[in-house]
Amino acid sequence: MDSDTTETSTRDHGFDLEADLETRERYGLRRTLEPAADVSARTRIDSRERYVFAANNYLGLATDPRVQRAASEAARAVGTGSGASRLITGDTELHRELEDDLAAVKHTDRTLLFSSGYAANVGTIAALDPDVIFSDELNHASIIDGCRLAAAETVVYDHCDAASLAVKLRSRSMDAADDERWLIVTDTVFSMDGDVAPLAAICDLAAQYGAWTLVDEAHATGLYEDGGGIVQRDGLSDSIDVQVGTLSKALASQGGYVAGSDTLVEYLVNEARSFVFSTGLAPPAVGASRTALQIARDGARRASLWENVETLREGLDSVGYRVLGETNVLPVLLGERVDAIELDRRLREQDIVAPVIRPPTVPDGTSRIRVAPMATHSDAAIERCLSAFETAGRDLGLI
Amino acid sequence: MDSDTTETSTRDHGFDLEADLETRERYGLRRTLEPAADVSARTRIDSRERYVFAANNYLGLATDPRVQRAASEAARAVGTGSGASRLITGDTELHRELEDDLAAVKHTDRTLLFSSGYAANVGTIAALDPDVIFSDELNHASIIDGCRLAAAETVVYDHCDAASLAVKLRSRSMDAADDERWLIVTDTVFSMDGDVAPLAAICDLAAQYGAWTLVDEAHATGLYEDGGGIVQRDGLSDSIDVQVGTLSKALASQGGYVAGSDTLVEYLVNEARSFVFSTGLAPPAVGASRTALQIARDGARRASLWENVETLREGLDSVGYRVLGETNVLPVLLGERVDAIELDRRLREQDIVAPVIRPPTVPDGTSRIRVAPMATHSDAAIERCLSAFETAGRDLGLI
Repeated sequence: MDSDTTETSTRDHGFDLEADLETRERYGLRRTLEPAADVSARTRIDSRERYVFAANNYLGLATDPRVQRAASEAARAVGTGSGASRLITGDTELHRELEDDLAAVKHTDRTLLFSSGYAANVGTIAALDPDVIFSDELNHASIIDGCRLAAAETVVYDHCDAASLAVKLRSRSMDAADDERWLIVTDTVFSMDGDVAPLAAICDLAAQYGAWTLVDEAHATGLYEDGGGIVQRDGLSDSIDVQVGTLSKALASQGGYVAGSDTLVEYLVNEARSFVFSTGLAPPAVGASRTALQIARDGARRASLWENVETLREGLDSVGYRVLGETNVLPVLLGERVDAIELDRRLREQDIVAPVIRPPTVPDGTSRIRVAPMATHSDAAIERCLSAFETAGRDLGLI
Repeated sequence: MDSDTTETSTRDHGFDLEADLETRERYGLRRTLEPAADVSARTRIDSRERYVFAANNYLGLATDPRVQRAASEAARAVGTGSGASRLITGDTELHRELEDDLAAVKHTDRTLLFSSGYAANVGTIAALDPDVIFSDELNHASIIDGCRLAAAETVVYDHCDAASLAVKLRSRSMDAADDERWLIVTDTVFSMDGDVAPLAAICDLAAQYGAWTLVDEAHATGLYEDGGGIVQRDGLSDSIDVQVGTLSKALASQGGYVAGSDTLVEYLVNEARSFVFSTGLAPPAVGASRTALQIARDGARRASLWENVETLREGLDSVGYRVLGETNVLPVLLGERVDAIELDRRLREQDIVAPVIRPPTVPDGTSRIRVAPMATHSDAAIERCLSAFETAGRDLGLI
């Protein structure tokens, strides 16, 4: 090679990843991993037994012996992996059984499993190929990445604000071509705020403009009516076009699902690239979630969760904390980032693990600690959590 | 609402998914699902026992009792799901153990697990945020989606053609700004052609232009040196910047991994959205793949696979078929689409399942049947496959 020609002397097209990490370090934004022994509500982290109020394993079913046996049985009877895309030979009768069970709970013709909730959102939104997406400003990253991959015009409306959505729809309709495909997308439960999208109003607006609706029930699936989500609680199963959800939270394994009409599912089988070009969900995950869904439908576990949620919400409120939202996720608002970080440290000293959520994840001045109760927290664990919040809050002058 | 104003009378912004399905039907492109009883090399599909020559479960480990026990043990000891993002409380000691084992095999500082290979490619390419991506024309869909999500300028070079890559690099370097970040991306084994990327030449070109390299070892992981892939076979572990791979093929479960420097992994922990915003890989998958990797390293299973590959390749060749490639995947070239479809039907009558691959997945005139031997195919199964190919091929006048 002639190394003194201009075209080969440019030799610095590499990536400086250190610079990014240093910036994060400087601004206190560097994230680190810290392994736990297992996923129980009480487990060993950093050499100590800790109470975990941070997991999305809301019903505590990821360590339930019945669910563990179901995972083992699926590994034994079907295999530890699907071995191929569902369209080749990775489709098994077990996948169908879970899809049927989920369709019964979600009141839809069918459901389709994906290898993660991220894959379900990204693959489904891109496959639908909408021209315009109306998206809640606090939608999950996987919805945002789906919008990006779809390369659609994305119109962001104010968080959980149907009036804002109405304004955006009306304004955009001035310029609309007749055959434009419009998709309104929202989480049903927002995991950082614990609040719920105004689904009925959104459905009315969708009907008015002939738009479709896609909702993500990631943090709701398994926790409401008959093991369903907010869509079922609100009686809107027939009004939502696409219900996305995940198996990795209340349903105790991994994977995502999409519930809807037979046509929708057939379309995704053919067009959703994250489905077509991914190995089928591993059978142990399918088996575990099938049993977890049965338990969720029974109701007793759900009742335990909601009891713990009420006790914690009332307890935190009564000592002077402000707890946001109206769901099982309890964001304790601190405001200043330094207060949230210091409270987190104090809780940790008392073996309570609950993550601090701060800018840029949430707006300036709204730093918070996200408390996630589980159905399997004992009364003693709940009390210990409350007592740690109270002691630390008083010491720090936060309450 | 005032329904006679122009802005609210536009009521047809829905999606006509039926039209797409009808088009696929008309052109013979509609895909359907067909469940199997389990993922064994011989299993019940459509009410009959069939020999599966279609799965990526190349070492047959997804039904190996040692791997099944490892999945069960992980479900029992750790949980059926991780319950949260790895960055919250979904990181377990088991995840670290598999990451360490994979790093040893891939000769890198560290590795990082993702929930699928699709998520690993999409998340990693988008996180690196390259300005220009040089991409083999036959790269996997997940690489293509990663390029799209990164919104980088993508320069496609001819398949497995280092000379073509050199031309593209040279040409693009004329217009290059000094600080542009360039990424050369290729699969190592191409699953539809069974061929191998010219990695050494690609590394030389990358060094010449100061570009980074990302290679996907999805179909190679576990099958070469000490359970590694083509990068290890070719002694290039130190020359490739990013090694992606999957756990869902030879390693018998589900998930993807990225292997590279400590800095790369720390960067992805912070920046790869499909990692940050996804639940950690389910422990049964982690446990299963850890044991599968140990078995792959031992070598006996790999030897069985390569014996079956040789027998099939020679057998198909000796009766007059043209078998492409040089790896464990055996694409039998038929040419005309109608021939491939008819041969597939005849094989199926003899209970041999191997997928026909046709346009638009491959170019016109290169329709093929993709035969994927497994280490666990018995001599009788291999013979039955060969005999079915011979009988059907003669009947149809293809050989």
